[in-house]
Amino acid sequence: MTAEKFALESADLFATDTEAARQKRRASVDAPLLAAVRGEKPSRRPMWMMRQAGRSLPEYREVRANVPMLDACFDDERVAEITMQPVRRHDADAAILFSDIVVPLKAAGVDLDIVPGRGPVVAQPVQTMEAIAQLPTVEREQLANIEKGIGHVLEELRDDQVLIGFAGAPFTVASYLVEGGPSKNHEVTKSLMYSQPETWHALMRALTPTIVRFLQAQIEAGVDAVQLFDSWAGYLTSRDYREFVAPYSHAIFEAIRPYEIPMIHFGVGTGELLGDMAVAGPDVVGVDWRVPMDSAAARIRAALDHHRPDAKPEDKIKALQGNLDPAVLFAGDDVIAAHVKRIAAEADRAIDRGQAKGHIFNLGHGVLPTTDPDAITRAFEEVHKS
Amino acid sequence: MTAEKFALESADLFATDTEAARQKRRASVDAPLLAAVRGEKPSRRPMWMMRQAGRSLPEYREVRANVPMLDACFDDERVAEITMQPVRRHDADAAILFSDIVVPLKAAGVDLDIVPGRGPVVAQPVQTMEAIAQLPTVEREQLANIEKGIGHVLEELRDDQVLIGFAGAPFTVASYLVEGGPSKNHEVTKSLMYSQPETWHALMRALTPTIVRFLQAQIEAGVDAVQLFDSWAGYLTSRDYREFVAPYSHAIFEAIRPYEIPMIHFGVGTGELLGDMAVAGPDVVGVDWRVPMDSAAARIRAALDHHRPDAKPEDKIKALQGNLDPAVLFAGDDVIAAHVKRIAAEADRAIDRGQAKGHIFNLGHGVLPTTDPDAITRAFEEVHKS
Repeated sequence: MTAEKFALESADLFATDTEAARQKRRASVDAPLLAAVRGEKPSRRPMWMMRQAGRSLPEYREVRANVPMLDACFDDERVAEITMQPVRRHDADAAILFSDIVVPLKAAGVDLDIVPGRGPVVAQPVQTMEAIAQLPTVEREQLANIEKGIGHVLEELRDDQVLIGFAGAPFTVASYLVEGGPSKNHEVTKSLMYSQPETWHALMRALTPTIVRFLQAQIEAGVDAVQLFDSWAGYLTSRDYREFVAPYSHAIFEAIRPYEIPMIHFGVGTGELLGDMAVAGPDVVGVDWRVPMDSAAARIRAALDHHRPDAKPEDKIKALQGNLDPAVLFAGDDVIAAHVKRIAAEADRAIDRGQAKGHIFNLGHGVLPTTDPDAITRAFEEVHKS
Repeated sequence: MTAEKFALESADLFATDTEAARQKRRASVDAPLLAAVRGEKPSRRPMWMMRQAGRSLPEYREVRANVPMLDACFDDERVAEITMQPVRRHDADAAILFSDIVVPLKAAGVDLDIVPGRGPVVAQPVQTMEAIAQLPTVEREQLANIEKGIGHVLEELRDDQVLIGFAGAPFTVASYLVEGGPSKNHEVTKSLMYSQPETWHALMRALTPTIVRFLQAQIEAGVDAVQLFDSWAGYLTSRDYREFVAPYSHAIFEAIRPYEIPMIHFGVGTGELLGDMAVAGPDVVGVDWRVPMDSAAARIRAALDHHRPDAKPEDKIKALQGNLDPAVLFAGDDVIAAHVKRIAAEADRAIDRGQAKGHIFNLGHGVLPTTDPDAITRAFEEVHKS
């Protein structure tokens, strides 16, 4: 099975219930984030921050005190409380489901843990066809508590606020499995990819259904949008991304597309990959802080033009998400305001030029744990004024 | 004093003795690396690897056993032995001086150490005008042992092999001083840069003469080329790089230019900065593995065209260095050979198109410590056949 041929043939794996999912969703069609994705003028510039639910907030540290990360991820009350904390505090336009990219693997029974100060650690690294054959595919009932947590969040969110579901993309999930934990250079992963491509593709094929099911569970529980995080994609060249990664991320977007909810795709340090990630099929491309929003839009438009020369003009552009450097939140109100203005102007320029549909303000990476929560609140205020 | 106005006015700080430096240099003008930089056809494709002298080699681990990093850097015999080890083993076309970017600060008396498994740690982080005023400028006699080590290396190198001197660029050196040690996100550094630009510029001004003197000492001791490492530059946007960093790197290149030796400039993850780094003034731009060599050449050419529209065509291109992903060295001989061929072809295409002068083969980042030294040797063989 080569990458080119990959598709989720086993449609019966995925009992897509788009109508049930639609009935659970509570956000108004006019919610700023949804309007921005459609390319309409939102009532205010929508904003959320990656890792907005997390260690920057004292109320988060309180809820997590003595509770291991994965325990919190499977506790519906804690999931809801942590997800809502930043929305209440900062008046965010979106909640991002509190979870982790290894949650569906853990749910499926893979022996792994999240070690404080280190990250996800896998008991038995997965590097052979035999180990891949033994990887379980997650079952919907193993995700029941996450669906329950989503239900609690939906009860509290205003209807102009959306809940964003969450999954790690197969490359990033695979990297943890192959390396056995976080890696600085991903050399074991890349070595497997380069020297045993059939094994690599088998691993990606094995992970894709679990990621699809994890997203489906969230969507059918009522999330209004999803973000597929490919945290480590920026360690790949465009060539490798297209050969070893894109077919599977694409298959995930295709599996989720029938739900007709916004699909966001993000990775760190992906300046070289923005076009490829757009071609993979999301509605919104998240942009790292290193690339100005108007440059990002131009790269995406050029890639879609190249890959879909016959598409309608509106199908050759995406909405953009980003891209304040999280370090700017340490530099005081005036600096934050100046950067917010610049980014808003860069995004608006892309929209005015017809190279982007709309703009969801976000960071260009996650909130750093030592960030002052008041600085975050003021950044939200600045964006909502912009 | 703003960045735009910055120049090394205190020329008397730098007793440039270009004639003495010339007399010490032993490499033949036909050495492959020197020919490639000039844009002539070298007798073979020149190659060295960043971190070729280091933990990948058992003979290195032996010399370093129970010897702290900074002790080794100031021990002329060890400096020479460690510098030569990979040249002997892999038949490299260049030796890179064994040193560290904090060596000139240590020599000048700054209280810092290199902590195994962590990196350089500074006793008193430098974050105020007062602390900057107290930063010493290195004196030549404080670098005597490094010059002595260079002398030993020159006795052993063949005349078709060159010795490359080494310094950290002011931004990367400043980051260690401001953060007090290695940083994942450089938020303290960026916060200082954004919120107190005068303090930032004062720090860069204070560091620049020490870096110039460190390079001058090496050049006057006989090195044939220098590399200015801006390891962390890739964490900056192009806008910030130009405002806060480029003027000082440029001043260093201008101070070194009278020696008429190749000056190489490299940083990791610098796809967005390649043009800016070329404009700063080196002869050779090192390219991270994420950007194909021909794309890198086109970006550099476009930037030089923009910034020096009236320059002669040959002054609008640079030699390129790079850019094998260090992870490829883990993937076996066939994979290594395929990637070497691809990179050589991409670089040759840039040269044929008149967008690059020549090609020095290297990694796109440093050798990883767990790399098999035999795989490194075979990569050198492949490049020399290409």
